[in-house]
Amino acid sequence: MRLGVCYYPEHWPESMWEDDARRMKALGIEQVRIAEFAWSRMEPTPGEYDWGWLDRAVDVLGAAGLQVVMCTPTATPPKWLIDRHPDILPIGADGRPRAFGSRRHYDFSSPSYFTASQRICTAVAERYGKHPAVAYWQTDNEFGCHHTVVSYSPTAVGRFREWLKARYQTIDALNRAWGTVFWSMEYRSFDEIDAPVATVTEAHPSHRLDYRRFASDEVARYNRMQVEIIRAHSPGRPVAHNFMQLFTEFDHYKVAADLDIAAWDSYPLGALEEQWFAPDVKARWLRSGHPDFASFNHDVYRGMSKLPFWVMEQQPGPVNWAQWNPAPLPGMVRLWSWEAFAHGAGCVSYFRWRQAPFAQEQMHAGLNTPDNRLDVGGNEAAQVADEIRAVLAANADANAAIRSKVALVYDYEAKWLFEIHPQGADFHYPRFAFEYYSALRSLGLDVDIVPVDAALDGYRLIVVPPLPVVPADFAARLANSGAQVVLGPRTGSKTADVQIPANLPPGALASVLPLRVWRVESMRPNVTEAVLLVDNQDATPEDGVARHWRDFIDSDAADSLDVRARFADGHPAYVKSGAFHYFASLFDDALTVRLLKQIAEEAGVETTSLGDTVRFSRRGALTYVLNYGDQTHTLANVADDAFVIGSRAIEPQGVAVYRSGN
Amino acid sequence: MRLGVCYYPEHWPESMWEDDARRMKALGIEQVRIAEFAWSRMEPTPGEYDWGWLDRAVDVLGAAGLQVVMCTPTATPPKWLIDRHPDILPIGADGRPRAFGSRRHYDFSSPSYFTASQRICTAVAERYGKHPAVAYWQTDNEFGCHHTVVSYSPTAVGRFREWLKARYQTIDALNRAWGTVFWSMEYRSFDEIDAPVATVTEAHPSHRLDYRRFASDEVARYNRMQVEIIRAHSPGRPVAHNFMQLFTEFDHYKVAADLDIAAWDSYPLGALEEQWFAPDVKARWLRSGHPDFASFNHDVYRGMSKLPFWVMEQQPGPVNWAQWNPAPLPGMVRLWSWEAFAHGAGCVSYFRWRQAPFAQEQMHAGLNTPDNRLDVGGNEAAQVADEIRAVLAANADANAAIRSKVALVYDYEAKWLFEIHPQGADFHYPRFAFEYYSALRSLGLDVDIVPVDAALDGYRLIVVPPLPVVPADFAARLANSGAQVVLGPRTGSKTADVQIPANLPPGALASVLPLRVWRVESMRPNVTEAVLLVDNQDATPEDGVARHWRDFIDSDAADSLDVRARFADGHPAYVKSGAFHYFASLFDDALTVRLLKQIAEEAGVETTSLGDTVRFSRRGALTYVLNYGDQTHTLANVADDAFVIGSRAIEPQGVAVYRSGN
Amino acid sequence: MRLGVCYYPEHWPESMWEDDARRMKALGIEQVRIAEFAWSRMEPTPGEYDWGWLDRAVDVLGAAGLQVVMCTPTATPPKWLIDRHPDILPIGADGRPRAFGSRRHYDFSSPSYFTASQRICTAVAERYGKHPAVAYWQTDNEFGCHHTVVSYSPTAVGRFREWLKARYQTIDALNRAWGTVFWSMEYRSFDEIDAPVATVTEAHPSHRLDYRRFASDEVARYNRMQVEIIRAHSPGRPVAHNFMQLFTEFDHYKVAADLDIAAWDSYPLGALEEQWFAPDVKARWLRSGHPDFASFNHDVYRGMSKLPFWVMEQQPGPVNWAQWNPAPLPGMVRLWSWEAFAHGAGCVSYFRWRQAPFAQEQMHAGLNTPDNRLDVGGNEAAQVADEIRAVLAANADANAAIRSKVALVYDYEAKWLFEIHPQGADFHYPRFAFEYYSALRSLGLDVDIVPVDAALDGYRLIVVPPLPVVPADFAARLANSGAQVVLGPRTGSKTADVQIPANLPPGALASVLPLRVWRVESMRPNVTEAVLLVDNQDATPEDGVARHWRDFIDSDAADSLDVRARFADGHPAYVKSGAFHYFASLFDDALTVRLLKQIAEEAGVETTSLGDTVRFSRRGALTYVLNYGDQTHTLANVADDAFVIGSRAIEPQGVAVYRSGN
Repeated sequence: MRLGVCYYPEHWPESMWEDDARRMKALGIEQVRIAEFAWSRMEPTPGEYDWGWLDRAVDVLGAAGLQVVMCTPTATPPKWLIDRHPDILPIGADGRPRAFGSRRHYDFSSPSYFTASQRICTAVAERYGKHPAVAYWQTDNEFGCHHTVVSYSPTAVGRFREWLKARYQTIDALNRAWGTVFWSMEYRSFDEIDAPVATVTEAHPSHRLDYRRFASDEVARYNRMQVEIIRAHSPGRPVAHNFMQLFTEFDHYKVAADLDIAAWDSYPLGALEEQWFAPDVKARWLRSGHPDFASFNHDVYRGMSKLPFWVMEQQPGPVNWAQWNPAPLPGMVRLWSWEAFAHGAGCVSYFRWRQAPFAQEQMHAGLNTPDNRLDVGGNEAAQVADEIRAVLAANADANAAIRSKVALVYDYEAKWLFEIHPQGADFHYPRFAFEYYSALRSLGLDVDIVPVDAALDGYRLIVVPPLPVVPADFAARLANSGAQVVLGPRTGSKTADVQIPANLPPGALASVLPLRVWRVESMRPNVTEAVLLVDNQDATPEDGVARHWRDFIDSDAADSLDVRARFADGHPAYVKSGAFHYFASLFDDALTVRLLKQIAEEAGVETTSLGDTVRFSRRGALTYVLNYGDQTHTLANVADDAFVIGSRAIEPQGVAVYRSGN
Repeated sequence: MRLGVCYYPEHWPESMWEDDARRMKALGIEQVRIAEFAWSRMEPTPGEYDWGWLDRAVDVLGAAGLQVVMCTPTATPPKWLIDRHPDILPIGADGRPRAFGSRRHYDFSSPSYFTASQRICTAVAERYGKHPAVAYWQTDNEFGCHHTVVSYSPTAVGRFREWLKARYQTIDALNRAWGTVFWSMEYRSFDEIDAPVATVTEAHPSHRLDYRRFASDEVARYNRMQVEIIRAHSPGRPVAHNFMQLFTEFDHYKVAADLDIAAWDSYPLGALEEQWFAPDVKARWLRSGHPDFASFNHDVYRGMSKLPFWVMEQQPGPVNWAQWNPAPLPGMVRLWSWEAFAHGAGCVSYFRWRQAPFAQEQMHAGLNTPDNRLDVGGNEAAQVADEIRAVLAANADANAAIRSKVALVYDYEAKWLFEIHPQGADFHYPRFAFEYYSALRSLGLDVDIVPVDAALDGYRLIVVPPLPVVPADFAARLANSGAQVVLGPRTGSKTADVQIPANLPPGALASVLPLRVWRVESMRPNVTEAVLLVDNQDATPEDGVARHWRDFIDSDAADSLDVRARFADGHPAYVKSGAFHYFASLFDDALTVRLLKQIAEEAGVETTSLGDTVRFSRRGALTYVLNYGDQTHTLANVADDAFVIGSRAIEPQGVAVYRSGN
Repeated sequence: MRLGVCYYPEHWPESMWEDDARRMKALGIEQVRIAEFAWSRMEPTPGEYDWGWLDRAVDVLGAAGLQVVMCTPTATPPKWLIDRHPDILPIGADGRPRAFGSRRHYDFSSPSYFTASQRICTAVAERYGKHPAVAYWQTDNEFGCHHTVVSYSPTAVGRFREWLKARYQTIDALNRAWGTVFWSMEYRSFDEIDAPVATVTEAHPSHRLDYRRFASDEVARYNRMQVEIIRAHSPGRPVAHNFMQLFTEFDHYKVAADLDIAAWDSYPLGALEEQWFAPDVKARWLRSGHPDFASFNHDVYRGMSKLPFWVMEQQPGPVNWAQWNPAPLPGMVRLWSWEAFAHGAGCVSYFRWRQAPFAQEQMHAGLNTPDNRLDVGGNEAAQVADEIRAVLAANADANAAIRSKVALVYDYEAKWLFEIHPQGADFHYPRFAFEYYSALRSLGLDVDIVPVDAALDGYRLIVVPPLPVVPADFAARLANSGAQVVLGPRTGSKTADVQIPANLPPGALASVLPLRVWRVESMRPNVTEAVLLVDNQDATPEDGVARHWRDFIDSDAADSLDVRARFADGHPAYVKSGAFHYFASLFDDALTVRLLKQIAEEAGVETTSLGDTVRFSRRGALTYVLNYGDQTHTLANVADDAFVIGSRAIEPQGVAVYRSGN
């Protein structure tokens, strides 16, 4: 565990660089990311590189004992390149090019841009690949930011047709797979197929999902090109990409498969404001972020990173890009940093060293203010650096890998499919996955977030949020894991071609879960349905409510099914068969927590009911406790001398770390 | 009265067809609609027809004793046709073609498409026009669905100029009629006139209304072409079109004038979610639909159908196309079916035989689930079939035509005019017409819904929702009818050219209603104005409230006007002159019901106050009672042996039918 | 002070003109504005003018003793001109031309239109420049209406590049000023710069602000061309333009600098509905308008008009263009008229003489109804005319110029900058300026609204709403004024190039206000922060709340700063240094009033707490009192014989005018 920072030498007079490097080092920073937006300085004139300034910047950083994370600058092609190759600009759903003047103005399917990217990546990698200060690489920057994965350009459509040919081989196979006989949408050749956009009413869901899959694959292809160039010129230096929280337009697993390090950019306050949370939730966690949001993402990227994952950009103060931008409470930058390490991070790198006084992000805080004074976040980073030294000194396994008893299956294609084919307008996959995760965390559980094709052996509890398409071997892997398995509604409800399974949902899972979803309904936000636990139904008029969705479960197979809860109209709400637990709806938070607690106990996993402000995480022999609330939280049963950081009384925004077994 | 179903043999293996036909017949279904989206199977290659599969499908259905409703397939031109004639695609208000990939991707003004449609309609009509199993025809499918009436293509604009020439003869006449002197919008020739779109601020209302009239006329012209081809090749078979509830972009009366049967597609739950109802109303009637919505439409289409109207598509379970899609309560499919017959339907045809597992509508229920088991809706259809047999056996006049004492005037142009020229942003004509209708229905009244040019003799009470443009003879027809006449606000407020009448509103109606609306105001949703009945004003501080709108009525003519209610500021709210009752606002529901009850009594029409859950309808000697509520409703004063269906105690979602006079 | 009216002879039969003129004169009207939309009648065929009708109309008005305000007709170029020069149409942000068919369909940067405008303006000015009845001129009509200042046409971009060259001289200077090194947005020549539109994410704020400045300058250039033509042909006649309330896309000060009279169009009810007010506020002032809205605008335009400002269009009844259009309460047209005179108006001109029965504005009331009867507004205008005679007869200085003790600094560029670069989504500059103004008015104060470069000598209290960019000499002018100065948050927070000042905010104001804003936060609408007055903090748990925004003020400089209020977390909320008062947030209304009252007292300016329904204004020796409330307001301490209009008891919607010192 170590600290880093993002730095833009090109934004500042060269006279400041040495002092910057010295102060970074003094603060406890060990690595510095640079150059991801610097193409116009690397190549100010077409074909004429200017490496001088960057050579000097790398040298200054290296001389100060800092490790450089060098970036390819492809997120911001310069204007002269766009003017020479206008086909680089992506085409929006409105049919218009998305113009130069901000960033990410390129089409992943543009051959011109692919070639230009190869050229600049090769140039950078050749120049710095073996520089002693360059320890790591980052490809591009935040793939998917600003909805830039999907383009409707002619080149994208051309490549999509090739992608379809590779997938379906014949046009007849595609017509069958999609069911184009419906509404006379049949194609006679792949060349007749356009992008699924601007249609009179909704375009065909199979067509749409394939276009999304294609667009996601284009991102992976583009990233792989960069990784291969870097590896050829800079052997032994790990390659990262900085993913952005919930930019789900491409499959992060597929991109991460080509990387050494899955990094992500953590902005707890900006995310709270911009994501699905209700206004009162946004007000409640205004200056701390939601207690489970950053950790959810830590666990997502830990699950796809070969080396320990990184936080490549850590929010250091107010940002500029949310609708409203509050300031973190004092202590939160420290808390967020320790939260990352608690979840397995190898590095927490702050964005950015110093707030720039110009351009789009001039209101985005840094560790230093624009007038070069250390800001609150900078002071907290220094504290974290000190504490890291203490932790590392005291605990040999502080950097231990994490393996939890509980797994949550998280899938990108599920997001696309439910977005394309929602059936209920607010069926938001990441939200529901997050709600399950949050329920598990409130029970004191550590959670591994894993892809649908992960090995599942060794888990005691596996939770599967609504997963429409399941792999052929999924039922077997779940069954063989020995875990208790919780499946959300709509799981197994679609084939890979976006059809209803011939045996109805849960499709291939019916082998382990003998039920048949013969009907569904979606519920508008002002409608809920009472849920009654079978064991408990005389005690209370209702035990909770169903929201958003109901699967109607066929009772023909009732013999082998244990109906554990019913809706008020008698239909089963929660059924169990062997180790498989099926939730026919999305329950309110309290009921979800209650059911997961009970199932965890059946799985032999011990739980602790924490409520919603305090969180525990375990890494190696250390237990980390974070207090997101506004009251001091006091730990019982921990010896005073067990604490590496903090003490039994954890103040609001406080952190405690103690050795287990003490 | 009989049952039908919509069937897509092209979606299923041919091996299933015979069993399907057998099971339909066994269920009690008598007619089967087919082929409305099958162009790509009829003509898989340009100019090369493949009739084999359709011949066999028709034969199978006929052999099972089923009557076929054959459709023209023009709602879904195939991709090869679009690629050959891109001008078929309609142009949206954004200036972009609306693309292939769903349905209704054609411009009614495209000459290419008109020709192609003539060709395919002739081919289908020649092939099946005299087939013994083919008993009826449907033209196209749901004209107007997905806002496809209005196109902004060059060909549409060209035809619009011709339409204008025919209407105004000279450009000077147009300039005068529209009042283009305002804002220097004068034209020097018809060729200078464009579509009223993309203007800096709102386009000219007369220009806009004429464009809407033109677009509506294009639909009628297109449908007439199809009807004429069918009649030429299939004499004696009635021709229908399936209108869709509240797709009001064209004048349904004008299209129905060329048909034998006005059919409509009834989706009570989808409509509730997608229409103007407030969230609490949507929650209240979530799984039944609004008690007056389907019947309002039944009465609309009965009023324009030469033969008994049909429900061509009846919702059989959850649909896929609303924002949220709940499941009907058990019993509702039966209730909806009987409601249609009670209002005069000749056929109720369920959409569709079996839920298809693919494409856009894969989540739309059928009578059977995708795995071919009879669904709830299928079981209820079977019950309805049995009950039809009982009703027909017991009552010779069960299929009697309906003629009510009460008429409600309903007009499509009124919708367009208020949409174009609202003056208050929520002045939604269909809503206000519906609210008057619902008030009449809550008084136990049967209602004929009629066009503005209908013969009005014989009615006792005529209710006219806000009708801006009245025909020259409307005052005389109303006066000569002998009925009490209720006129909503804004009636007579515009000339046909969208000008204020020279004598101010109510314009031509001033001859029978001597008042002058000298000022109006629209009211935002959080504003109401108290209304006090003149007879009753000392008893209560207010008797109700005005919403949305106020006409200010000149009191100069007060001698001949009986002011029956006033607003709190003293202006008349409801005035009467002879048999004419003028409402100067849209009142709250309770006040509307109270006033209509009183006027009905003045008209000698007996009322029964039913509240909002139970509805009565009379057809021939039978009275139908439907219970939309959640409490059992018990009928008094009906003899036990009068019941053909049900009994005096009508359960929630229940139906009772009894003979009058018993 | 005198009355006027807007008249459209081209809308009415010539036979009505003489009677119209006679009745205008009899009503007390003295001036008549004509012809601003009459191009298609002036030049019905390209190059062939038809002056006959307009000659006769001017003659008729002149013969009746009325003064004519002649207009250039450039707000509505005719269709034939558009067809000849399609480049006249402005290009929207969507890249599409904004079409003919309403008004203001021209691009200020179109050379074709500039030339055509020169030609028609010259023709009108030559024809009527010396006509004895023509006393005044109006250029065009409501610049900026319907968001027509900014166009994205190629000609606009071409002129923008020239504008940039003039501003920055070299591309290197521009790159430095904007900070284009961020995200590799560097330009190699001015020709590489496009309009800041359609970018992937937000375009560069400096780029955007410069585009807005350029577009504003184009309006001023276009207006200047017209003024110069008029002055050349019609010497001695004052030239006006009718600005529209809160059409802030261009700098009204810059346009007014070329005019003699700044006029504005006052629609209190339409504005209430369309502006930022919350629904309950809209309901409360539904039929009167907000008590401070018209007067705010009167004071804005008084502050930029060389001759007394005018209300060129005064709302006379319900309008047509708001979402909802209520009717003014009886008396409001009179009240609004007197309010204008009380604030210094030279003329109040009603829009319009008679409601037109056709086209887009047919539902817009006039002084007469379409059937030519005098409407409520007409009757009230007649009353005002009588009262003006009484006031003028009794008071020699009734037309005195106004100079207040209190100034409020109002700036257009501030609106653009906060719109482009809000940091909090609801940071709406005009709203905050208005709230400060309203607080001052509720304290009984008269307010001069002045530009940022105004001479400030003589004011006792100067209030500066959030002003991001301050001129270099602003601190000195404020300090030298001798006034107490109140500065809103974010004042001095940006350089003219949209960068953060090197010394952090308040930038150049730090010389007089030694503080440093080291951090900011924006707050979502459901979040506030308690504020505690330092003098008062033990008495109440909070004295008010902060909304929208917080500046965090560095306490290093605390010695010279008097912290007068703190936020609940201890950060300073209101600090004082010498005569400078800095508000670190936007406070709730009550706290704002309380603080401004206290500061006014420190400035030696007497206040009267009026609440929110009664307003006082002083002009010369007269005090005007207006009652916007629904209760009679009784004045104490005014002698009965002091009243020129009204009396001590002022009814709802009432007006009183009394001589001071009586």
